Amino acid sequence: MSRYAIIVGAGAGLSAALARACAADGMKLVLVARDIAKLAPLVAELGARAMACDAGEAQAVDRLFSVAERDFGIPELVVFNAGYRARGPIAEIDPQEAELALRNNALAGFLTGQGAARLMLKAGAGSIFFTGATAGVKGFAGSAPFAMGKFALRGLAQSMARELGPKGIHVAHIVIDGGIATPRNAGEGDKLLSAQAIAAAYLTLHKQPRNAWTQELDLRPWSETF
Amino acid sequence: MSRYAIIVGAGAGLSAALARACAADGMKLVLVARDIAKLAPLVAELGARAMACDAGEAQAVDRLFSVAERDFGIPELVVFNAGYRARGPIAEIDPQEAELALRNNALAGFLTGQGAARLMLKAGAGSIFFTGATAGVKGFAGSAPFAMGKFALRGLAQSMARELGPKGIHVAHIVIDGGIATPRNAGEGDKLLSAQAIAAAYLTLHKQPRNAWTQELDLRPWSETF
Amino acid sequence: MSRYAIIVGAGAGLSAALARACAADGMKLVLVARDIAKLAPLVAELGARAMACDAGEAQAVDRLFSVAERDFGIPELVVFNAGYRARGPIAEIDPQEAELALRNNALAGFLTGQGAARLMLKAGAGSIFFTGATAGVKGFAGSAPFAMGKFALRGLAQSMARELGPKGIHVAHIVIDGGIATPRNAGEGDKLLSAQAIAAAYLTLHKQPRNAWTQELDLRPWSETF
Amino acid sequence: MSRYAIIVGAGAGLSAALARACAADGMKLVLVARDIAKLAPLVAELGARAMACDAGEAQAVDRLFSVAERDFGIPELVVFNAGYRARGPIAEIDPQEAELALRNNALAGFLTGQGAARLMLKAGAGSIFFTGATAGVKGFAGSAPFAMGKFALRGLAQSMARELGPKGIHVAHIVIDGGIATPRNAGEGDKLLSAQAIAAAYLTLHKQPRNAWTQELDLRPWSETF
Repeated sequence: MSRYAIIVGAGAGLSAALARACAADGMKLVLVARDIAKLAPLVAELGARAMACDAGEAQAVDRLFSVAERDFGIPELVVFNAGYRARGPIAEIDPQEAELALRNNALAGFLTGQGAARLMLKAGAGSIFFTGATAGVKGFAGSAPFAMGKFALRGLAQSMARELGPKGIHVAHIVIDGGIATPRNAGEGDKLLSAQAIAAAYLTLHKQPRNAWTQELDLRPWSETF
Repeated sequence: MSRYAIIVGAGAGLSAALARACAADGMKLVLVARDIAKLAPLVAELGARAMACDAGEAQAVDRLFSVAERDFGIPELVVFNAGYRARGPIAEIDPQEAELALRNNALAGFLTGQGAARLMLKAGAGSIFFTGATAGVKGFAGSAPFAMGKFALRGLAQSMARELGPKGIHVAHIVIDGGIATPRNAGEGDKLLSAQAIAAAYLTLHKQPRNAWTQELDLRPWSETF
Repeated sequence: MSRYAIIVGAGAGLSAALARACAADGMKLVLVARDIAKLAPLVAELGARAMACDAGEAQAVDRLFSVAERDFGIPELVVFNAGYRARGPIAEIDPQEAELALRNNALAGFLTGQGAARLMLKAGAGSIFFTGATAGVKGFAGSAPFAMGKFALRGLAQSMARELGPKGIHVAHIVIDGGIATPRNAGEGDKLLSAQAIAAAYLTLHKQPRNAWTQELDLRPWSETF
Repeated sequence: MSRYAIIVGAGAGLSAALARACAADGMKLVLVARDIAKLAPLVAELGARAMACDAGEAQAVDRLFSVAERDFGIPELVVFNAGYRARGPIAEIDPQEAELALRNNALAGFLTGQGAARLMLKAGAGSIFFTGATAGVKGFAGSAPFAMGKFALRGLAQSMARELGPKGIHVAHIVIDGGIATPRNAGEGDKLLSAQAIAAAYLTLHKQPRNAWTQELDLRPWSETF
């Protein structure tokens, strides 16, 4: 197993904070996104590798993990951080939005989880984390596609955890409950989730010894109603 | 609103029992399956209409509800009873199986629910029921695609219930927990779920007055470990 | 087993509706309350037996079930419908309120459930239902004692269901989600739960054949936010 | 606020590991148990204060927090780690066991949480953690009193979290899922939970910044079936 992490759904916000936290811990980074042009500054900052990949395409994900293994070995951490929101009144949602929500939240999670599992099973170790949302625990009105996608991701994480835990692989689902602070909404102070604090929680989860693993972690700001 | 029901995912077992229960209650039946040849005996028995439709195809589902409305009006009950099981160790599952599980459990549920909602919103009444499974509540090992599909369906049902309840439409998710008795396994006596008893529970749910609705109903045989 | 029901926590509202529904189904009634004077009209109406009992006292509950068995045999249905609300900011609640909430929601439920189980185990049949609340599923702010009491009751119902189901006894927990209409608030129309409709749902649950039992039933008015 | 922790239900195992972890972090310790004689070695090791208190008695708990405040100020962390197991077939359990399970798991948790909240509300900060169990999430057969007690504790923690979070106090419920390794069962290797690892997880929870708090943390060994 090598000291590196793969972050699928890399970009700004949480995934950039995650990348920095992994780097600070000594890991190399493989940052995966459909469009990697936007990753250039982060890649430069961290000396990371960027790989373009549509995580909803089986062959592309296969290639991703093949190249990653060839170049870096077996990753100690894979984070699925992609997502696709699609909302609206049930009668008005374009069915393509429902398809995309399932594809980009659930199928992409499956393919990423599968690719990670195939590598980590060789090592009998490693962490596979899925970024979830409250929408994966409670189906809100006017949010059917997103509810489907995030519920599916939670079911995937549970199933994988029950299968892979006894094989030494730590699978966890993180329930992000609340908005994440960005430069734009900084006026709300610490009433929003901090991307850095979330990233620190992922790292802590990854460092848990296997005799005390967490399967599901909820994170919300102190001020959040839930 | 007309006294008829649409059952998507018609076949033997539970859906046949449902069709008979609806017929006994005085409803006409529209039975929907990909392959309607197998429905011939039930169609004859109940004087039902069979419609061929792949519930995972948006246009086909659109057509289904258009024809149903034209010929029968607004249905008082729509049951989504289709499903697709795909299991196996996470590392070995063909990604196409994951796609099919999402398409046939979740997307098909969405399209059916959307079609039903569009009609029922005109009446401000009606019932939309989704046949779920324990796999939609707990993600079992070696069952990632089915877990994704059934979790997604539960999320869909919750989201739709929260949106459509206040508009007079009853959306419920039924958790079938345990095997259903068939002619083949009748030797197990009443240790298996009875399709007739499940169908009766659906009818009761449909008859609930709107000032005491159930959103989620679990059904299991007395002998089931859970 | 005899065709009669014991309702613990009898009074107006839901329990009166339950008693009437049982009577309409042909059951005799044993109505249990601390103060049975208030039950006189209902007792007269239904030809019921009233028994005074503090369900939080072990010896009193023992006596209750002894007398009931001697006079009526083994009941086919026992409903625990008592409850005690205690709310307030955590820092201000009188600890006695917390004790009473645990005693009257949970301990009384335990004693009632135990008494019912002891009789029904002789018959290998019967139904034991616990009236729960949303407060038993989600712990609301400013409601710690009630949350404790209703959570405990739900845990009791689950534990008893898992033990007694395979012995032929149907244990269910009903989640009442929303206010119940009373003569005073009738102005809200059907936006409130109907006691009659809830009672009908209990009866339906009781009539479920054992090859399709429900363990937890939520009931809310169509207009309820949840 | 002072750098010290109060651990209610102090003894060997998890609470000793917690005390050591707090001490290693620089906190002083107040160790609370009914019988403090057994705490002598730990008290000596850590320079801790032991206080005898039956956490199920309101006046005793009041005194405990009064003395603690007078001598140490407002604690930054209070852990409720007491518990009382009572199991058996529902028909055979001594009702006193049910009372004790409610008193020692739930009422004691309430009194401890209330005492902690009263102090911490003055500071608008602090952590209150409740040690839960899988029994608080799922009611197992033959375990009604313990299920009641642990469900109630979970309801308490949720209610307090929703009330106190917006006031700056972090309330969490930790679901211990699995046996904890002791000197006696060390032969099972890391297939059991490690008290040290659990204690580390509590400390991490306590260190979470308030813009990324966890309300419920599950901990289990990698090999655990769940």
